[in-house]
Amino acid sequence: MKTKHTLPQPFKGIVPPMITPLKDETNLDIPGLERLINHIIEGGVHGLFILGTTGESTSLSYALRHELVARTCEIVDGRVPVLVGITDTAAIESLRLADTAEKKGASAVVAAPPYYFNLGQPELIEYYEYLVERLSLPLFLYNMPSHTKIIIEPDTVKTLSKYKGIVGLKDSSANNAYFNNVMNKMKGRSDFSLFVGPEEIMAETVLLGAHGGVNGGANMFPELYVKLFEAAEKGDVLTVKSLHGIVMEISSKLYSLGNFGSSYLKGIKAALNIMGICSDYMASPLHRFREAEREKIANNLEEIKSKMLNLKH
Amino acid sequence: MKTKHTLPQPFKGIVPPMITPLKDETNLDIPGLERLINHIIEGGVHGLFILGTTGESTSLSYALRHELVARTCEIVDGRVPVLVGITDTAAIESLRLADTAEKKGASAVVAAPPYYFNLGQPELIEYYEYLVERLSLPLFLYNMPSHTKIIIEPDTVKTLSKYKGIVGLKDSSANNAYFNNVMNKMKGRSDFSLFVGPEEIMAETVLLGAHGGVNGGANMFPELYVKLFEAAEKGDVLTVKSLHGIVMEISSKLYSLGNFGSSYLKGIKAALNIMGICSDYMASPLHRFREAEREKIANNLEEIKSKMLNLKH
Amino acid sequence: MKTKHTLPQPFKGIVPPMITPLKDETNLDIPGLERLINHIIEGGVHGLFILGTTGESTSLSYALRHELVARTCEIVDGRVPVLVGITDTAAIESLRLADTAEKKGASAVVAAPPYYFNLGQPELIEYYEYLVERLSLPLFLYNMPSHTKIIIEPDTVKTLSKYKGIVGLKDSSANNAYFNNVMNKMKGRSDFSLFVGPEEIMAETVLLGAHGGVNGGANMFPELYVKLFEAAEKGDVLTVKSLHGIVMEISSKLYSLGNFGSSYLKGIKAALNIMGICSDYMASPLHRFREAEREKIANNLEEIKSKMLNLKH
Amino acid sequence: MKTKHTLPQPFKGIVPPMITPLKDETNLDIPGLERLINHIIEGGVHGLFILGTTGESTSLSYALRHELVARTCEIVDGRVPVLVGITDTAAIESLRLADTAEKKGASAVVAAPPYYFNLGQPELIEYYEYLVERLSLPLFLYNMPSHTKIIIEPDTVKTLSKYKGIVGLKDSSANNAYFNNVMNKMKGRSDFSLFVGPEEIMAETVLLGAHGGVNGGANMFPELYVKLFEAAEKGDVLTVKSLHGIVMEISSKLYSLGNFGSSYLKGIKAALNIMGICSDYMASPLHRFREAEREKIANNLEEIKSKMLNLKH
Repeated sequence: MKTKHTLPQPFKGIVPPMITPLKDETNLDIPGLERLINHIIEGGVHGLFILGTTGESTSLSYALRHELVARTCEIVDGRVPVLVGITDTAAIESLRLADTAEKKGASAVVAAPPYYFNLGQPELIEYYEYLVERLSLPLFLYNMPSHTKIIIEPDTVKTLSKYKGIVGLKDSSANNAYFNNVMNKMKGRSDFSLFVGPEEIMAETVLLGAHGGVNGGANMFPELYVKLFEAAEKGDVLTVKSLHGIVMEISSKLYSLGNFGSSYLKGIKAALNIMGICSDYMASPLHRFREAEREKIANNLEEIKSKMLNLKH
Repeated sequence: MKTKHTLPQPFKGIVPPMITPLKDETNLDIPGLERLINHIIEGGVHGLFILGTTGESTSLSYALRHELVARTCEIVDGRVPVLVGITDTAAIESLRLADTAEKKGASAVVAAPPYYFNLGQPELIEYYEYLVERLSLPLFLYNMPSHTKIIIEPDTVKTLSKYKGIVGLKDSSANNAYFNNVMNKMKGRSDFSLFVGPEEIMAETVLLGAHGGVNGGANMFPELYVKLFEAAEKGDVLTVKSLHGIVMEISSKLYSLGNFGSSYLKGIKAALNIMGICSDYMASPLHRFREAEREKIANNLEEIKSKMLNLKH
Repeated sequence: MKTKHTLPQPFKGIVPPMITPLKDETNLDIPGLERLINHIIEGGVHGLFILGTTGESTSLSYALRHELVARTCEIVDGRVPVLVGITDTAAIESLRLADTAEKKGASAVVAAPPYYFNLGQPELIEYYEYLVERLSLPLFLYNMPSHTKIIIEPDTVKTLSKYKGIVGLKDSSANNAYFNNVMNKMKGRSDFSLFVGPEEIMAETVLLGAHGGVNGGANMFPELYVKLFEAAEKGDVLTVKSLHGIVMEISSKLYSLGNFGSSYLKGIKAALNIMGICSDYMASPLHRFREAEREKIANNLEEIKSKMLNLKH
Repeated sequence: MKTKHTLPQPFKGIVPPMITPLKDETNLDIPGLERLINHIIEGGVHGLFILGTTGESTSLSYALRHELVARTCEIVDGRVPVLVGITDTAAIESLRLADTAEKKGASAVVAAPPYYFNLGQPELIEYYEYLVERLSLPLFLYNMPSHTKIIIEPDTVKTLSKYKGIVGLKDSSANNAYFNNVMNKMKGRSDFSLFVGPEEIMAETVLLGAHGGVNGGANMFPELYVKLFEAAEKGDVLTVKSLHGIVMEISSKLYSLGNFGSSYLKGIKAALNIMGICSDYMASPLHRFREAEREKIANNLEEIKSKMLNLKH
């Protein structure tokens, strides 16, 4: 293990939420994992986030989560900072995972609110205080109301940002009024990083000052998202519009098959499998696409690739 | 009555959702209405939207709604296009209001989904088809899921956009992944206008190609929103950031007192009253701010005005 | 017009939420209305509730609502108390309708919370206080969170029950923990009537002390619901189980076709039309069943009728 | 370990969802656990359910969950059937816990839907099929929409009930229209047990044919709930009303302090501690009551006890 990265301040850029390549319910697809990590890092990303929603974290056994942390840190080998999702309903398991993350050389941990009991904001603040007092790695808050049933209110973000160990927020609400409200409350705090999850909104948030994106599509096309981020950071609106247009095509063509919330995740795994990178196995309760959807993904993938080529020429 | 405006294609810019100046539960504050309309139009806006959520439409008696349409068109006198909210649970009352709008010289009508029964998308499509077949004025869809309990899905917008009489969408969801998805589906359709409601997200959506904002703050500071729109349309990111910063201060300082969803609306009415423009009376079930909040609004208003002045120098 | 009924204390029994027989979007089916009212009253019900959710109140024009009040009171002619739904987003229109109700001889009015703006409990209390101070007829609260987006909390019911003019609650939440909580808070208050809307839960609530049901199925089979109520009031569990079984069959066979929340309402209107009582026209945004569903309703209706016959022998 | 109970068909009665006595975040309060189990069993209950919502299952480390299964089965020692909650977002961990349950002599397992990803009904059916094919113990479905964000639709219950290994449903929705709908669909299936969670609705559901209650209050007063169940099963409405009245007092006086959803759980733990039975420690993210609430609980507990005494005399 290389010495771990200390996160720059502010930490910024594209930090793909890595899917978890699985052989079956209890085993990692190790060669796939290696190919995927290398593929992503070679795309120029600024970090790697494992065990998020896109990583199917909550569907994996605990043993597998710990194993994934170890293997990922090993393969990454210090090339980029590794962020580890420790979201759990049991704080004690979050801390155990954070401990492994620290030992294996990860740079930070990320925690969404506990997602079983319905909490109020005061309980949420106490919860994050409980974590931060016991963590050695820096902590990112993770706002994910569609899955956790609770919003980390802007005032709660502000309150928690006084802790040195809490260094940023990943917001996956897709509610930009909320996100801009948080940005406004945190302005001037270059030590607190603000990322959005949904790639459909990354460009505009970075144009207005956000620090980056934790965008699923960067599993497939890391370079595209890096370029879009760079253009947005520079305020190069023309390039942003053109690259953002491709991101919207990816969203529209790869993430919208089927009826349920998981079509995004199924689409990415199918595409990565078609691209020859890793297995598309999904842990229960989700299931990979069947042949019909897979074929559509394959066709749409070709279309997207040719659009990306056109762009280059 | 001047000959009414035919909407340009695409219709774009700042179209303030006008608050309704009220003397009491059943009477308009007519001098206030006149001052307010003149104040807004002199700010350079591109249209005026009455009887929306910000206009407390659903709290007004039917007689008052019809009266407001007549008075507004009279006072506007053809200076800008007038858009009239006809949102209702009873389609027949929507049509009656549209009829008044047409007769008095309004340029378009705007309808959110009926908000009592829980509908599915097919029922929603049938509903808008029912309206559009009976309307003589062009119709804007109005997505307002927090109040209507239903999202106008992007595919529904696409389906409905084939009707010549349906000419745009006002989206107040604040969900930019949704909005960008709609923009992507409608790209190339310069005859279909895409506006957002929440002013906190207007700048970024226009930067990426949206047509404008229906922003409550433009009741108070129309010029600010017009300038922000123009900067965003030009892709002038620096100016956008600076003006957007003031909009976020307005949102943070004027719209966030009190506990409930209506603090935005109470804040605008209080501010307009403090500015000497019109009454702050609110129709039941809402109530204007009491003295304590009103004082805070007055102080915060001063702060915002001085920031705006600094900007000019 | 007969002298109106003063409601007994406590008011109890079966008070069918009458569907509104419509010829088309703007006209009542008058002969159907007469047949329906007579059919219901001859079933032995204890009151009649018009302009509720089942009555499509929010889909009707204001003129039609007022006309329905007048016509119904005329046809009922003092045989049972008439309760009039005045639920509206505009308090002023609620009061106007209450005025008509009072003039035409109705006995009480019923109001769900305003259903457009998102209110808090304090605003809800102020709203009902506003109404009750201006009403001459007694008022029933109407809890309908699936449509209004707000629960009338048990403590709010308790607070409002101190007003002499507020005489009861109709709860359509189907949440019996909520309802039992309200019953517990109001115990000993024989002057405050507690009714439930969903017929699927009427029997058990009356067994435990509730005052009655506002059950849609009583449009079709008033006698069944009256007998079930009487058995439940007496604590005759065997009869309750047997009659409740038929009510559940009605619910299962007539209210569950199609995908959306309105299948209950479509089912009742179809059945009444098949029974030769009145038109099944529904006001926009809802639509009556098409032929396929109608045939199923016809078949299921036969099945239910034969079960009811078996019961009698 | 005694030979485990095979569940009778139908399984019925009072099956308390046991709270988990904790010394601290990672250790059981073993003497408290022993006192609690004996207290509950001596009250005449028909089974014991551990690791449910009331048992704070999702807040406990995995090691602790496995330990609790072992310890409980040991202490119960075959006196009543033990049901083990295996609800988890990772199916593999559910299966591991079910394996421990089987080895230690539990009689059945109970699983709510996975509660992180948003699933549709087809995915939910596949999920339960996945489980049931791999389980050796019988499985109860557990409907808990407020925590899991998904309803197990009545048709889904019906579909899943064809599997021999799925033997019942615990419904904690408090929606009795839903529950009666399920009862109606499952009538005649004496091999499929229907329980409700909320004690506020247990009496009425058993009066109409449900099999029993999984009621938190039975941690404190097992005998009360057993007597109420027996009276309801016999159709003894007078006794039901009287005992149900006390249950409603317990709900009103012990479960309603504080603002959030967990006041029920905090109330039970505080009361058990005051009664000298076990620790009131709660695992993160929840916290036990502070002194002020605890005093109120102590006072209210005295009141309730004296009501129960009056009843006996």
